[in-house]
Amino acid sequence: MSQRLVVVGGGAAGMSAASAARRVDPALEIVVLEAGGYSAYGMCGLPYFLSGTVARADALVAYPPAFFREKRRLDLRLQTRATRLEPDKHVIHYREDGREHRLGYHRLIVAAGGSPSLPPIPGIDNDHVFTVRTLEDAISLRSLLDAGHVGRALVIGAGYIGLEMAEALVQRGVVVTVAEELPRVMPNLDPPIAALVEEEVRRQGVDLRLGSRVDAIRSTDDGLDALIDGQVVPVDAVVVAAGVRPAASVAAAAGAITGPGGALLVDDSMRTSLPDVLAAGDCIAPYHRVLGRPAFVPLGPAANKTGRVAGTVAAGGEATFPGVVGTAVVKVFDLAVARTGLTLAEAEAEGMHAVATDALGRSRAKYYPGAGPVSVRLVHESGGRLLGAQLVGSGEGVAKRIDVVAVALQAGFSIEDLLALDLSYAPPYAPVYEPILLAAQAATTSARDAAVPA
Amino acid sequence: MSQRLVVVGGGAAGMSAASAARRVDPALEIVVLEAGGYSAYGMCGLPYFLSGTVARADALVAYPPAFFREKRRLDLRLQTRATRLEPDKHVIHYREDGREHRLGYHRLIVAAGGSPSLPPIPGIDNDHVFTVRTLEDAISLRSLLDAGHVGRALVIGAGYIGLEMAEALVQRGVVVTVAEELPRVMPNLDPPIAALVEEEVRRQGVDLRLGSRVDAIRSTDDGLDALIDGQVVPVDAVVVAAGVRPAASVAAAAGAITGPGGALLVDDSMRTSLPDVLAAGDCIAPYHRVLGRPAFVPLGPAANKTGRVAGTVAAGGEATFPGVVGTAVVKVFDLAVARTGLTLAEAEAEGMHAVATDALGRSRAKYYPGAGPVSVRLVHESGGRLLGAQLVGSGEGVAKRIDVVAVALQAGFSIEDLLALDLSYAPPYAPVYEPILLAAQAATTSARDAAVPA
Repeated sequence: MSQRLVVVGGGAAGMSAASAARRVDPALEIVVLEAGGYSAYGMCGLPYFLSGTVARADALVAYPPAFFREKRRLDLRLQTRATRLEPDKHVIHYREDGREHRLGYHRLIVAAGGSPSLPPIPGIDNDHVFTVRTLEDAISLRSLLDAGHVGRALVIGAGYIGLEMAEALVQRGVVVTVAEELPRVMPNLDPPIAALVEEEVRRQGVDLRLGSRVDAIRSTDDGLDALIDGQVVPVDAVVVAAGVRPAASVAAAAGAITGPGGALLVDDSMRTSLPDVLAAGDCIAPYHRVLGRPAFVPLGPAANKTGRVAGTVAAGGEATFPGVVGTAVVKVFDLAVARTGLTLAEAEAEGMHAVATDALGRSRAKYYPGAGPVSVRLVHESGGRLLGAQLVGSGEGVAKRIDVVAVALQAGFSIEDLLALDLSYAPPYAPVYEPILLAAQAATTSARDAAVPA
Repeated sequence: MSQRLVVVGGGAAGMSAASAARRVDPALEIVVLEAGGYSAYGMCGLPYFLSGTVARADALVAYPPAFFREKRRLDLRLQTRATRLEPDKHVIHYREDGREHRLGYHRLIVAAGGSPSLPPIPGIDNDHVFTVRTLEDAISLRSLLDAGHVGRALVIGAGYIGLEMAEALVQRGVVVTVAEELPRVMPNLDPPIAALVEEEVRRQGVDLRLGSRVDAIRSTDDGLDALIDGQVVPVDAVVVAAGVRPAASVAAAAGAITGPGGALLVDDSMRTSLPDVLAAGDCIAPYHRVLGRPAFVPLGPAANKTGRVAGTVAAGGEATFPGVVGTAVVKVFDLAVARTGLTLAEAEAEGMHAVATDALGRSRAKYYPGAGPVSVRLVHESGGRLLGAQLVGSGEGVAKRIDVVAVALQAGFSIEDLLALDLSYAPPYAPVYEPILLAAQAATTSARDAAVPA
């Protein structure tokens, strides 16, 4: 009798898991329970669908359901939400067409993704308040935009998703207010780097309100009134981008051990603490190689990779996931903003003896047209071990430079090792001294200078 | 009495050396002997000055001579060519204003750069035959172009400089023929990657003649006749880009030990075999970390770095240069072409058990506008140690991706380590699976598949 694998979640992690399992075991019965109406779409592309940069929603769908059902023989069930897990009985309960069902499994993979955090603001359940976490959400908001019904909008949250949303709305001609409770944008960057992003957002005409509270959202005759710090701001739509929490509640309620941010803890083969239950994607806390412990950093590449590992292992194969270093890049209007490893604030919160060195380089040879500034911050143990980097600049060529540091972090490099790097040079693409090397040079110099009085 | 340092060569390596020496020892007498009329200019920018992308020659000059003379107190002497070295007497001979002079030194740094190879073609000494190795060369050729005197041109050599020259000339509206003795372009790439470059060069309308010999260049009434494979090709100018040799003859004649390609051998502090004589830049063979021995790879970043080390050490400081991995990138019309480490051919020539894995990725998320193909070749020990990579694609974002592999080579990574990399992702800048990771995946799969019958 064939074994049955049930995968909860049909996003990047879930479909990677199901596909990997199929490769390992052609005979396995594989059921995928997806709560929404779409599977395997590029969630990170939603802002570009809203902005119109991506014309049609189906362009975001990597493969249609028929592909998975026919080519990969996956029993993919949409509009099917897992509700309760009985690990001892090896049974998962789910809701479909308004009714509860139960399904036995030999192995289960929880790949339910993340849920948008909803601040407890009166009126946040209004129809014109959107969380853009699913393709359905984005299609609804885009319809409103296409119909010309959104002249003004409020974005709640100035993290990277909030700023992507602000950019998308500005591109649609919408007058945008962004309200953020913290005194700055992008809390996952150190303040001097975040300040560069803030400047760009304001330069693009966004009404950015930092240290601001949204107290209420109220329906009016022709839209909404948002109450921000006691001031009434009339808008046509609200986008909530106040962070993401792991969708781990079903597994956690069944006793699965959770860690940072409430995400599921897994071993390096993606096994949870529950027997025959694995997990992958945004609902887990993967091992962070610089922190040396699990961390909740929900990002696309790790969702794909952990999904593949979970599927391989669940089907009887062998695979491990060595962890993340926290690499991310985001486009904020004309800037590429990237980070990897730890910020100074994160390193200090961890009790590390860290310092930061800032340097300003260029994206190309000085004399080559289009050369722009590249700001680099290296975080390190006073000239010793490298802990992280942040990078801001304009142009496509800037974005991927963070990967140099991501590799160096994986290798456990010191600042000295970084200085020795043999990086590519040609006037159209780089200056002869790469911005990261300039920063490394500054880090050794300042470490040396700092060492004199000590 | 103050000590005297003499630096032979005022290019990237020489001026880096002199500047570093000044930082270490404010009292040192520093004389720089530069054969040409310019110092410290961006030699790699010459093609972009020819094309008009860089409007004025002085934009290529990083700092004018007055800066070095006044701010850094360097005795910079232009039009001054070193002719003979007497290491036992600590004397360097040089020619200035047609006369021989001698100058004593305590330390000497040879940073004379590279000389263009001149194939023994009758007529190659014609006035309208150019080697574009110095700013003077480029200014002469550009004058001819600006005056509208170049309608057709021949480039001899299809290495990276030859192709940069071809691009520059095409941008000036010149009809360009490129003649290359080898059966393919860019001998420092493996054939499948070189083929992509060849295709682009032809697509741009260049008359590319591979496996071709230029037998003679003759003056005619209104220009030149190039005799190529027995066929007469009338042109207005010829650019020779047939490779570069280390300008090591003065030091070599004095007994300095040379290595690959006739380049000077140095230790990791840039000391040659001659007492008190150091060397840096394109005239040395730096240590190649993948080969595990010195190699002649004349490139800008190493010239700057080895210059800095030589200057620091010559002035009494401490510094070492850990070597190169052979990273380079070049723009060939609409393609970025990059390499690092060893090609398959180079690894095989070294007796290594190497294989190559090719993969085709994309530069951005599939649905994001402007996503283009990125071809990656990884060279590795059959799924084990990484030996090198080659990469071709369009767009600025492609160029710097080679640096990921450059870092991995320095770290001694295996294909497995590469697979574990946590690289940045955002739809405008990258696909969720980076092209290099796709290639690494293919490398393990093929290694695994290959392992089955064994």
